[in-house]
Amino acid sequence: MADVPLEERPIPEPGPNDVLLRMHSVGICGSDVHYWQHGRIADFVVKQPMVLGHEAAGRVVKVGSAVKHLNVGDRVAVEPGVPREMDDFLKSGRYNLSPTIFFCATPPDDGNLCQYYKHCANFCYKLPDNVTFEEGALIEPLSVGIHACRRAGVTLGTTVLICGSDLSSERLKMAQEVGADFPLLVTREDSAQDVAQRVAGRLGKQPHVTIECTGAESSIQTAIYATRSGGVVVLVGLGAEMASVPLVNAAVREVDIRGVFRYCNTWPMAIAMLASGKVNVKPLVTHRFPLEEAAQAFETTRQGHGVKVMLKCDQSDQTP
Amino acid sequence: MADVPLEERPIPEPGPNDVLLRMHSVGICGSDVHYWQHGRIADFVVKQPMVLGHEAAGRVVKVGSAVKHLNVGDRVAVEPGVPREMDDFLKSGRYNLSPTIFFCATPPDDGNLCQYYKHCANFCYKLPDNVTFEEGALIEPLSVGIHACRRAGVTLGTTVLICGSDLSSERLKMAQEVGADFPLLVTREDSAQDVAQRVAGRLGKQPHVTIECTGAESSIQTAIYATRSGGVVVLVGLGAEMASVPLVNAAVREVDIRGVFRYCNTWPMAIAMLASGKVNVKPLVTHRFPLEEAAQAFETTRQGHGVKVMLKCDQSDQTP
Amino acid sequence: MADVPLEERPIPEPGPNDVLLRMHSVGICGSDVHYWQHGRIADFVVKQPMVLGHEAAGRVVKVGSAVKHLNVGDRVAVEPGVPREMDDFLKSGRYNLSPTIFFCATPPDDGNLCQYYKHCANFCYKLPDNVTFEEGALIEPLSVGIHACRRAGVTLGTTVLICGSDLSSERLKMAQEVGADFPLLVTREDSAQDVAQRVAGRLGKQPHVTIECTGAESSIQTAIYATRSGGVVVLVGLGAEMASVPLVNAAVREVDIRGVFRYCNTWPMAIAMLASGKVNVKPLVTHRFPLEEAAQAFETTRQGHGVKVMLKCDQSDQTP
Amino acid sequence: MADVPLEERPIPEPGPNDVLLRMHSVGICGSDVHYWQHGRIADFVVKQPMVLGHEAAGRVVKVGSAVKHLNVGDRVAVEPGVPREMDDFLKSGRYNLSPTIFFCATPPDDGNLCQYYKHCANFCYKLPDNVTFEEGALIEPLSVGIHACRRAGVTLGTTVLICGSDLSSERLKMAQEVGADFPLLVTREDSAQDVAQRVAGRLGKQPHVTIECTGAESSIQTAIYATRSGGVVVLVGLGAEMASVPLVNAAVREVDIRGVFRYCNTWPMAIAMLASGKVNVKPLVTHRFPLEEAAQAFETTRQGHGVKVMLKCDQSDQTP
Repeated sequence: MADVPLEERPIPEPGPNDVLLRMHSVGICGSDVHYWQHGRIADFVVKQPMVLGHEAAGRVVKVGSAVKHLNVGDRVAVEPGVPREMDDFLKSGRYNLSPTIFFCATPPDDGNLCQYYKHCANFCYKLPDNVTFEEGALIEPLSVGIHACRRAGVTLGTTVLICGSDLSSERLKMAQEVGADFPLLVTREDSAQDVAQRVAGRLGKQPHVTIECTGAESSIQTAIYATRSGGVVVLVGLGAEMASVPLVNAAVREVDIRGVFRYCNTWPMAIAMLASGKVNVKPLVTHRFPLEEAAQAFETTRQGHGVKVMLKCDQSDQTP
Repeated sequence: MADVPLEERPIPEPGPNDVLLRMHSVGICGSDVHYWQHGRIADFVVKQPMVLGHEAAGRVVKVGSAVKHLNVGDRVAVEPGVPREMDDFLKSGRYNLSPTIFFCATPPDDGNLCQYYKHCANFCYKLPDNVTFEEGALIEPLSVGIHACRRAGVTLGTTVLICGSDLSSERLKMAQEVGADFPLLVTREDSAQDVAQRVAGRLGKQPHVTIECTGAESSIQTAIYATRSGGVVVLVGLGAEMASVPLVNAAVREVDIRGVFRYCNTWPMAIAMLASGKVNVKPLVTHRFPLEEAAQAFETTRQGHGVKVMLKCDQSDQTP
Repeated sequence: MADVPLEERPIPEPGPNDVLLRMHSVGICGSDVHYWQHGRIADFVVKQPMVLGHEAAGRVVKVGSAVKHLNVGDRVAVEPGVPREMDDFLKSGRYNLSPTIFFCATPPDDGNLCQYYKHCANFCYKLPDNVTFEEGALIEPLSVGIHACRRAGVTLGTTVLICGSDLSSERLKMAQEVGADFPLLVTREDSAQDVAQRVAGRLGKQPHVTIECTGAESSIQTAIYATRSGGVVVLVGLGAEMASVPLVNAAVREVDIRGVFRYCNTWPMAIAMLASGKVNVKPLVTHRFPLEEAAQAFETTRQGHGVKVMLKCDQSDQTP
Repeated sequence: MADVPLEERPIPEPGPNDVLLRMHSVGICGSDVHYWQHGRIADFVVKQPMVLGHEAAGRVVKVGSAVKHLNVGDRVAVEPGVPREMDDFLKSGRYNLSPTIFFCATPPDDGNLCQYYKHCANFCYKLPDNVTFEEGALIEPLSVGIHACRRAGVTLGTTVLICGSDLSSERLKMAQEVGADFPLLVTREDSAQDVAQRVAGRLGKQPHVTIECTGAESSIQTAIYATRSGGVVVLVGLGAEMASVPLVNAAVREVDIRGVFRYCNTWPMAIAMLASGKVNVKPLVTHRFPLEEAAQAFETTRQGHGVKVMLKCDQSDQTP
């Protein structure tokens, strides 16, 4: 792996509803690595050179003529999906489902792993002084969690089973450190119903909500069996196109099965959570590289080192 | 099949919150026939003689001391499920999921296919003068439809795909007569994705909601592929315990999969619908038998004749 | 009142997301008359000549380059409010509350009471063959009703009290003709609590929902007292800025008080209702005038004649 | 005020669905003092001697024959409202609105400020080991807050204005200590609209939700003006029956006005919150008295000393 020189592109000019950002911190996502390695994810195929990056924060350096809520110098987090048209999905508050949405680093749309980046101002959210750029960049992965919890109706007092991490005692320990109360180690030999029973035993009751993060068929089965009647299984992990699952069990107990596609309306909540200290995402950043060492940063992520690798795009300010 | 003499049982005495009913009309359900023929449905096993019947209407002949909203002479429809305890399901408005619920003709609970029957007064609903006893009895199957539509969020203007009836041109015709706008005949050879495309072609768009009434794996697959992003698939039909379905397709388009278990809070709405003439269920009653000919009535249902067979339990009043 | 010659303006050029319409039928609303007579409504002041009209339907004659769902020749209904920016209200599905929204005939935005009119294509909805232009124009006032019912959670079987029409036996009769079941004539001397009791007596129970259409203080009081615990009062009528109302009564019975501001996401539902014949709005059109006789049409509305006055903007097609 | 000897009553016998409790800690509520001093609250009149107390926790000493989820020795919190019948309110999950509900210390129903008390087992909630009896007793007032937040849709990231405490700098300081971020001192001379503007200025935006805890007319007015469009005002404080409020302002901005009546379905959530340490109510208990000194305890509350006065009903265990 040799160090790749950055490609020079013209600095974009913001339209009336846009802002131009000096990018500061951009996290690397698994999907970025996947596009880099394979040139495609499912039906999304990279057909021409594409800028990666969609977990991003930067500083406003130019403001479009119609923009009122942002000023030059504002520090902002970037929501990567911007609807292109006011279709029924946007009108009804579910713009993440709009089929024509612009989305950073989903071909053919360029991402924001660069120095200067133009974005719709309504999808740039001002960061309070006590929220760092890196926290701002981490709002993107945090949004997946927020959206999953919203889809499930998680609220104070909800008992939640999270499937994932459960085959590795090391990861289980990490889960405990960030808030899991009842770790449960499973093996590939355990039947779905057995695991479900162990969950109930461990909790003293069945969880209201199960968030399935693996996409593995057996884990989805566990999720259904484990969830209490009237509860919700949220599918975050994605596995094989077809899965064999106990639908009758889910149906007669009115356990709903709901998926998530990205997120919508999460940035304001995420910023409020970060500003209030209700959630601490800072420890998740385990590696930092200047933008010029992007190749090495990607390689680090590809090899599975650490948790989140952050690229620092502003040579004059490499702080978190 | 010989005519079976009715068994004589003592007329029950209503408790303070009960009413005693002189039963008038009781419809025969497929589950009644199944218990009659097989003595069990799934884990529900008939271990001692059980009165069948749970689609019922009758007249109040005795009123418990604490009952205020009913009087002797009132004509009522009977909701067959009565929660036995105030558990979390009842408290939160989903009493159909209460595991200890009493339910007519689900072992070991007796049904109401008899002459005199005692029931919790709060689950007996007064019929307006313009709603017949038989319409009152038909509220039970109607409630399954209401509950399914509620679970799906069906409202005015919702485009609904109903899976079922689609392999038979005769049934399709009947579906059209009772309100279906776009009949679509399919064959067992059609792939799920092909059928889904034909649905979209026929409607000019994808349906918001699909109500799957067959339980067949291929039809559930069709239901998922056919439903528009952000929509809902409701599972009414029950098939094999495990089903192989395109969960990834559902998840990334946020198509929710929801089951139904019986119903709750449907009788008042059903009575309002019937009283206003918004729905006409009368043509569904194709056969009537006096209670004394119950064996023949059950045989008629077992052989699949007609749509709904009604048993007339009051010798002095065999009107609809 | 002399006949005013129409002002000639250039035919507008549709942008990439717009369509150009040949207007066909435009209804006159009370607010149009109010702007005509008084030049303002509350804080909305007409400071320069403004085209009136926002209940409209027409035919597509030109299609913007990015528009995919409409073609030249399509007959469409026009939703008059078009959000100008993707603010939090639009993102969360309540774009009617967006403070920067464009709205036909609310100063300074021009309406569509003219021959050629340009509009955002995503807010033009194709009419099925069995829905007339005039029905399309009437979707606007119908939308207020749909939005009020949605805000109230009205569904099949909901008992609804509608306040309005109740001081006039003639209007009460009309209300009955279009669907009201229990007319109740009141006088200005009746106390709010008395009227509420009479409502309960008439219905045999309290209504789940009250839709208050007068804005009169006494009627709002009646609405609160009359609604059953846990129900909803929707404020459609607007009266004096301050109103003295029994808030404690509403609060301790958890009767919610909700207002409506215009509507959102109603056109598709309205078109489905009209196309299916579930609602018949045609009889509401009592007068028609060619666009050239607009002054006379406005005078007719001002004098309170009939129900809805329709202006026919297309000289070559003055059909409904 | 002389020390009143306790009245001796027979220890009640639990029915099949009841448990008998040895009461441990019972908080004194303002309503208890009001009944003591005035013998009535609104239409609830004390006509015969009534046991006070409805903020309570105790230990199970006897278990009804049908009770499965509790055992002798379990420590439980008591939800004071128990529906007497399965009416529409209970069936639909809003049992707090049931007009025939039993409620501790609301005439004519006895409360639980005594040594032995019988209660419906389904409304006794087992306390985890790390939740004290006093925390269990405090779940009752905590439930009012939970219910208000639920009615308002408060979730992570919601900006909430709480009206109350604002005339006293001392109380404002206390509010800050328990979590308020932006205290705002007001005077009786400030106009509602001025206060609303100051709120927006202080927050940098309008709050999504306002929880009005005073019942004062001017404060309700402030609540409406201050809340952002599409938001919710929850009325917790109760003042004069009639209030003059800017309903038009609320209506056209779709600011909903919702009341609360007690609570429902809050104990499980409250226990989860206390057990997880997410909320700390312990500092609220400022005074403790043995049951034998109840008169002095009530006098302390009447004089407004401290925050919460706790009565210790078990001579053998006076721990928190």
